[in-house]
Amino acid sequence: MSVNEEQQTGKDGALANAQWGGRFAGGPSAIMQDINASIGFDQALWRQDIAGSLAHAAMLARTGIISEADEAEIRRGLTEIGAEIAAGRFTFSTALEDIHMNIEARLSERIGEAGKRLHTARSRNDQVATDFRLWVRDAIDGLDAQAASLMRALSRRALEHADAPMPGFTHLQTAQPVTFGHHLMAYVEMLARDRGRLADTRRRLNECPLGSAALAGTSFPIDRRMTAAALGFDRPTANSLDAVSDRDFALEYLSALSILAMHLSRLSEEIVIWCSAPFSFVRLSDAFTTGSSIMPQKRNPDAAELVRAKIGRISGALVGLLTVMKGLPLAYAKDTQEDKEPVFAATDAAALSLAACDGMVRDLVPHTERMRTYAGSGFSTATDLADWLVRVLKLPFRTAHHVTGRLVGLAEKRGVDLADLTLEEMQAEEAGITAEIFSVLTVESSIASRTSEGGTAPANVRAQAARWLAALGEPAA
Amino acid sequence: MSVNEEQQTGKDGALANAQWGGRFAGGPSAIMQDINASIGFDQALWRQDIAGSLAHAAMLARTGIISEADEAEIRRGLTEIGAEIAAGRFTFSTALEDIHMNIEARLSERIGEAGKRLHTARSRNDQVATDFRLWVRDAIDGLDAQAASLMRALSRRALEHADAPMPGFTHLQTAQPVTFGHHLMAYVEMLARDRGRLADTRRRLNECPLGSAALAGTSFPIDRRMTAAALGFDRPTANSLDAVSDRDFALEYLSALSILAMHLSRLSEEIVIWCSAPFSFVRLSDAFTTGSSIMPQKRNPDAAELVRAKIGRISGALVGLLTVMKGLPLAYAKDTQEDKEPVFAATDAAALSLAACDGMVRDLVPHTERMRTYAGSGFSTATDLADWLVRVLKLPFRTAHHVTGRLVGLAEKRGVDLADLTLEEMQAEEAGITAEIFSVLTVESSIASRTSEGGTAPANVRAQAARWLAALGEPAA
Amino acid sequence: MSVNEEQQTGKDGALANAQWGGRFAGGPSAIMQDINASIGFDQALWRQDIAGSLAHAAMLARTGIISEADEAEIRRGLTEIGAEIAAGRFTFSTALEDIHMNIEARLSERIGEAGKRLHTARSRNDQVATDFRLWVRDAIDGLDAQAASLMRALSRRALEHADAPMPGFTHLQTAQPVTFGHHLMAYVEMLARDRGRLADTRRRLNECPLGSAALAGTSFPIDRRMTAAALGFDRPTANSLDAVSDRDFALEYLSALSILAMHLSRLSEEIVIWCSAPFSFVRLSDAFTTGSSIMPQKRNPDAAELVRAKIGRISGALVGLLTVMKGLPLAYAKDTQEDKEPVFAATDAAALSLAACDGMVRDLVPHTERMRTYAGSGFSTATDLADWLVRVLKLPFRTAHHVTGRLVGLAEKRGVDLADLTLEEMQAEEAGITAEIFSVLTVESSIASRTSEGGTAPANVRAQAARWLAALGEPAA
Amino acid sequence: MSVNEEQQTGKDGALANAQWGGRFAGGPSAIMQDINASIGFDQALWRQDIAGSLAHAAMLARTGIISEADEAEIRRGLTEIGAEIAAGRFTFSTALEDIHMNIEARLSERIGEAGKRLHTARSRNDQVATDFRLWVRDAIDGLDAQAASLMRALSRRALEHADAPMPGFTHLQTAQPVTFGHHLMAYVEMLARDRGRLADTRRRLNECPLGSAALAGTSFPIDRRMTAAALGFDRPTANSLDAVSDRDFALEYLSALSILAMHLSRLSEEIVIWCSAPFSFVRLSDAFTTGSSIMPQKRNPDAAELVRAKIGRISGALVGLLTVMKGLPLAYAKDTQEDKEPVFAATDAAALSLAACDGMVRDLVPHTERMRTYAGSGFSTATDLADWLVRVLKLPFRTAHHVTGRLVGLAEKRGVDLADLTLEEMQAEEAGITAEIFSVLTVESSIASRTSEGGTAPANVRAQAARWLAALGEPAA
Repeated sequence: MSVNEEQQTGKDGALANAQWGGRFAGGPSAIMQDINASIGFDQALWRQDIAGSLAHAAMLARTGIISEADEAEIRRGLTEIGAEIAAGRFTFSTALEDIHMNIEARLSERIGEAGKRLHTARSRNDQVATDFRLWVRDAIDGLDAQAASLMRALSRRALEHADAPMPGFTHLQTAQPVTFGHHLMAYVEMLARDRGRLADTRRRLNECPLGSAALAGTSFPIDRRMTAAALGFDRPTANSLDAVSDRDFALEYLSALSILAMHLSRLSEEIVIWCSAPFSFVRLSDAFTTGSSIMPQKRNPDAAELVRAKIGRISGALVGLLTVMKGLPLAYAKDTQEDKEPVFAATDAAALSLAACDGMVRDLVPHTERMRTYAGSGFSTATDLADWLVRVLKLPFRTAHHVTGRLVGLAEKRGVDLADLTLEEMQAEEAGITAEIFSVLTVESSIASRTSEGGTAPANVRAQAARWLAALGEPAA
Repeated sequence: MSVNEEQQTGKDGALANAQWGGRFAGGPSAIMQDINASIGFDQALWRQDIAGSLAHAAMLARTGIISEADEAEIRRGLTEIGAEIAAGRFTFSTALEDIHMNIEARLSERIGEAGKRLHTARSRNDQVATDFRLWVRDAIDGLDAQAASLMRALSRRALEHADAPMPGFTHLQTAQPVTFGHHLMAYVEMLARDRGRLADTRRRLNECPLGSAALAGTSFPIDRRMTAAALGFDRPTANSLDAVSDRDFALEYLSALSILAMHLSRLSEEIVIWCSAPFSFVRLSDAFTTGSSIMPQKRNPDAAELVRAKIGRISGALVGLLTVMKGLPLAYAKDTQEDKEPVFAATDAAALSLAACDGMVRDLVPHTERMRTYAGSGFSTATDLADWLVRVLKLPFRTAHHVTGRLVGLAEKRGVDLADLTLEEMQAEEAGITAEIFSVLTVESSIASRTSEGGTAPANVRAQAARWLAALGEPAA
Repeated sequence: MSVNEEQQTGKDGALANAQWGGRFAGGPSAIMQDINASIGFDQALWRQDIAGSLAHAAMLARTGIISEADEAEIRRGLTEIGAEIAAGRFTFSTALEDIHMNIEARLSERIGEAGKRLHTARSRNDQVATDFRLWVRDAIDGLDAQAASLMRALSRRALEHADAPMPGFTHLQTAQPVTFGHHLMAYVEMLARDRGRLADTRRRLNECPLGSAALAGTSFPIDRRMTAAALGFDRPTANSLDAVSDRDFALEYLSALSILAMHLSRLSEEIVIWCSAPFSFVRLSDAFTTGSSIMPQKRNPDAAELVRAKIGRISGALVGLLTVMKGLPLAYAKDTQEDKEPVFAATDAAALSLAACDGMVRDLVPHTERMRTYAGSGFSTATDLADWLVRVLKLPFRTAHHVTGRLVGLAEKRGVDLADLTLEEMQAEEAGITAEIFSVLTVESSIASRTSEGGTAPANVRAQAARWLAALGEPAA
Repeated sequence: MSVNEEQQTGKDGALANAQWGGRFAGGPSAIMQDINASIGFDQALWRQDIAGSLAHAAMLARTGIISEADEAEIRRGLTEIGAEIAAGRFTFSTALEDIHMNIEARLSERIGEAGKRLHTARSRNDQVATDFRLWVRDAIDGLDAQAASLMRALSRRALEHADAPMPGFTHLQTAQPVTFGHHLMAYVEMLARDRGRLADTRRRLNECPLGSAALAGTSFPIDRRMTAAALGFDRPTANSLDAVSDRDFALEYLSALSILAMHLSRLSEEIVIWCSAPFSFVRLSDAFTTGSSIMPQKRNPDAAELVRAKIGRISGALVGLLTVMKGLPLAYAKDTQEDKEPVFAATDAAALSLAACDGMVRDLVPHTERMRTYAGSGFSTATDLADWLVRVLKLPFRTAHHVTGRLVGLAEKRGVDLADLTLEEMQAEEAGITAEIFSVLTVESSIASRTSEGGTAPANVRAQAARWLAALGEPAA
């Protein structure tokens, strides 16, 4: 059948049926299974689920709720199931809905009676809350390590180019000269805040819901501090209703990732612009660009573009989960099952983005001569002239700026740089100006003079980069 | 290894490594492949890609750009590849990045030289834009059919319960009696608007980008009207730069789905509330609820809760893609590759939600007696009393309301309904009241009196439902 | 007290109190008034509210529900109130909560008894729904006219520069030459779709809720077709429950504005980049830039940056209102009062953005020589070479591309343009190449050859611009 | 002119013009002023701007950059200007664009020459970054105090109702009995996390940008530690490029507010449902409800509905600002001016929401008898029966659940509660059951038995509430 025919039949639903129909032909049970079952994605929690069950069983045995023998059986069974899953030999069943029932059913299948005792004094509600916290905690640890690696890469390159001039832009217009190293270190500060947010999220989520049971706690004499400690949590959660219905940790995590992704989108945007022909500030190698069969010299910064875009996925996940949680009555509601896929997708996007930025930062070759040229154009040292008028001639700031403005106007009219004006021309505007003025009008002197804390002076940048490298466990020299 | 140990090692990155590390150990090329390749998700476009290529090849032959023999080869090859994919016998290659290169490479493999001529006068940029439009168009057709089905279900149930009283709520407080049928028909109106939006989106997207080539058009004497017609498009797009960088159709589609999902979230919220013990307005069967081993009588409305939540996924996709598109310079940018996964996920969420609502609406059993009881409580006919005062006694509206307010206050103080007040008590407030007043204070008379266009009178509701059923091709009787 | 002290006391709440406290010191009634009253923003609806009331009163008189004399009084009163508000002589009262009660109370104050009859057979629920639809409809008309104006400006400039070469970018890398006019016309297509969306929204919203009353319709013999017609609506809404709880029109409107704002963000991003020193593709006058006292030559494209940012406000309004509407039970809920401020703010942002873009497009001076230079660099005519190989030598497309790739590689190695290679060098790669090849390697021939529909050939661009200008009522010549 | 006429003319733009046109009739300068000037909203920063300037001037004098006499003049002038603004006697000028220039211009007007020295060694870029951080810090302090107050109110009510049974819901279906106090304490935990997030945001933002100047730092010998300390900051920011382009603090703040608003939306949703006639779990007084002239007994929970909706405004502000910041090149860009209005609006929404919730929690009267009735229905103690089988008869958990399921099924069939089954009936399912079983089937025994940490046992709840009250400085007794 030709596609044209397909499309035409599509108009009355036939093509649509080929793709869409049939799916729900199984009636209510097929629909319900499709919308309800989570095993398609929550199998990603298998490590965490087994970890939680091992801790729970150990506690049940210690408190006498189950026997030591049962606990040993359970431990053996879960360990074997973990090995099965890791080896790809486990068959996940949609009929069993989720990872928790898949593992528990397999456990009973393997070890019989003892397996049926595992779920004593817990519920799927506190179980999934525990598993998901563990997963997010692991994800934070992974992303934190990646962010640290990117900070090291940036600091290393910043140290290398601590005194390489580039135009400092405001509004993408040349404003004042800065150094390429200084520019890179701005991203180190951003990433440091990102890591701070991830660490705060980790600390705040690090309470164990296990033992909250369905919603009300339990009458079994459980020891929640024991399971919490075994799973690396700081303490048990304090209110069972809150514990099973809370997804703050996922939201806070997605918030932190959204801000992180925003930072990386800025870096990527800069790389895309810097790689454009008119800028040509940097060059990326083949490793992070794509060419074409026809223009082999072309270097499309696809990786940078994709990182720039990833904030969409991540902030979309955040706003989506906020919407899901809006207005939910306590305690557990099935709506919260919509928490996982967005968190998984956002984590993947963030991990890829960090990896790509890390690679690009290590890979890129700055065209320092070209940057230097633009750093010195556009009257970029006008502020230096004005500051000299204030500092040396004691002119009020606003007055000094107006004098400078007139000199810039004159230079522009003459088509020359500020430093190309004669002393006489300058003195015609402000009699007190001396030849010393020319010493502040070069790119190098401008940069060297910005010694205020956080300023662009190369010594500052070098110290800042070295300090960060040391803090990140990678001494500068 | 115990999980506890895992978690502990996790703190210094070991567990994180188990999950996260290694992934990027392959260095730059592994990272680039991971972030750049789209075959993992864009294989969903295979039908559309083959359709587009068939139309393109036919046009190339007709215009003499390739030979008829080459076109025949290409047609045969693509048809066979389609069969391979449909049968699950096609091996997708990540190295070939996307569905387009996967299919074209396979074509050359199968038919040799002729396969290398297929890509004449086109580019991946116009190819992917065409494929994705076709996919969204098919998705619209599928969802439109589902929405029509849900409208039929609602209208059918509305006809069945056109005169069954239920409390009409404002602020979830009883305001005036309405009928259950009238309430259901409100959702028919919403869905009709949803279908209107989908139809408008379909109409607006139905222009063919094919032939825009990379961004500037082509020097080959192609016939864009021929390919457009073959693929069911109304016309070719008018500007090649716009054509390859436009993703409006995806955004407009996601907007329409977001509003649709909002409607379904409202219906689902109502079902959840109606199923609660204090309301008990409706009962869902086992088909759309989950129970528990311990409380087999329990009917958790999981399907309704999940539908209520799906708006998060869908509006998250919308805001994510808007963010992706923000500030992109023309023409094609790789950022737009981030359009597909959110659209696929949102489509899936919408299709599932419609199917689940359709099922629930057909399935639910209203407890009409219970609804009727609440319809008559809370002085729900106070407005009828006031309107009588205006209509019969010619009192100004605001005056009539104040008289009614005093009568309601009296009834509340006495703990009786308005109809239980004596005529004398009423006349004490307003001398003109006659015994006729009691005829407007019943639930049935109140409902029957609302005969204004769109009002809740059963005859209105019946007519409205019948009209919709007829329009939807399902005569009421 | 010094500010420094303020900040210090701020730590224990004292400064906070200065700003925050006191506000809610009035206790519950102050809080309730603050959160509940809408007169602070819904006074923007005054024209629409008076329009609705006039139409309602006329209908009440025509149907005999009120007397002609009362209607005349009401008309006189409302007209005078309208004049008071227009003249800034109306005192809005927060105690009266909203614009509807403010006007109705003033009416009773002015005309007495008749004023108390105005609210017969309607409710604030259908009244506000009507007013807000009218407001959005007016806003659409205003924005539509602005968008048309911007389309005219773009088309006019496109006609002016229909054959001015500029580099066509993909990935912000030079890909193929296009014309500046062609580039501008891409935005005309986007805006045409925006206007289409606004028109569809207008058409769909153009149903009149008035007469739906609180939620159930009314028992008065009203004529909804008469009020609908008087207010310019196509028909009354069909279901009273839906009519008072529907805010689809606001959501669809915000969706259309979000996509529009996305387009303008792209144009603005391009202007910002084009204005940067390394690009210098265009120059904006003082009218749309800001300078500084110190660098009077500097032209910061503030207007473009602000337009680029406005999508945040608009898409934030969209996602916010979707969140508000999520999961609301029928019928009216106070939550929907949160619809207005975001719609007002988004409208303002869109109107400002369109005005600023209109101004910038008319204002900007393209540096065509500079664009032309970049249009011819980066082997931008490699595709033309490959297409010649296909067209003239009948090489398969993929083969032709590989030959071209090798020639580009050779030229790059030699540091020359493609046109600077000798015929012999070319023939060494592909023996069939003739001297004719050089005729396709210029920017002008490349552009002129893209004559496919929608392609960048100047004749195409001119025709497209002229067609749009004619359609927009502004003949090209 | 009648409104009808207005609407008709509206169709061809006349009404639109009345509202929209004219606005931009002033041409480019009017447009630019409208989009560019921020004084309309950033005047809210006046306290912070004066605070910053006082600190800056003091530092300039201490470091000898200006004279002590100038500093004294500046201090006097700014103090007077502060008094003028506080008294409403300051005329803000749109031509002066923003709060910074308005105040500085007024200063020069008042004190002459010295005023022109104030801006030495700073720029509007670091000035606005400093002002806005101070404002957000103050806002955090205000909201933190409000959140603490709400926690006190909840804890106080929880203590009061620590043993009042209510149905614990999952899926809004009765699951197990809990206490009303326990339910309220869940919100205390949420708010505690909210305060934690606000505190982390405050700590992270508490670095002073002042002295970063335009973007590169300054050559003046400023003392950034002095200004930082004077303004209550912990330290100066570390990188000047980052300092002027960073808006992380606003994003993190909006994230924290979004999660807070989500919590309050859940509480509000519960209040709305609890106030509905079928639930009637609580009653709000007139203070937080609205009635109507006609149904004076009606209590519409408007405040709760509006709080439920406010998350839309707040999360819309968050996603909007994320979108604004996406892809912005360093350093300062005018786009960031779009940060303030959303932050102001979100702060206002959060403050109102906290105040309204605080008021409602203190105000609401729980109908404990009605809650208790529902707590005991729906076989809510089935879990207790199953746990008894596990604990006493040592049945495996899964087996115990199946036995219980059969007993519940039997009770349902007979239309009685579990406790109404005879011992014989129970023993028919499980022979080991003894009469002791009846002691675990009451609501009170069920609640009392949930003594696990965080469980609903009244003693737990009392201890938890008392602990929080003590921590919040309000001893329980």
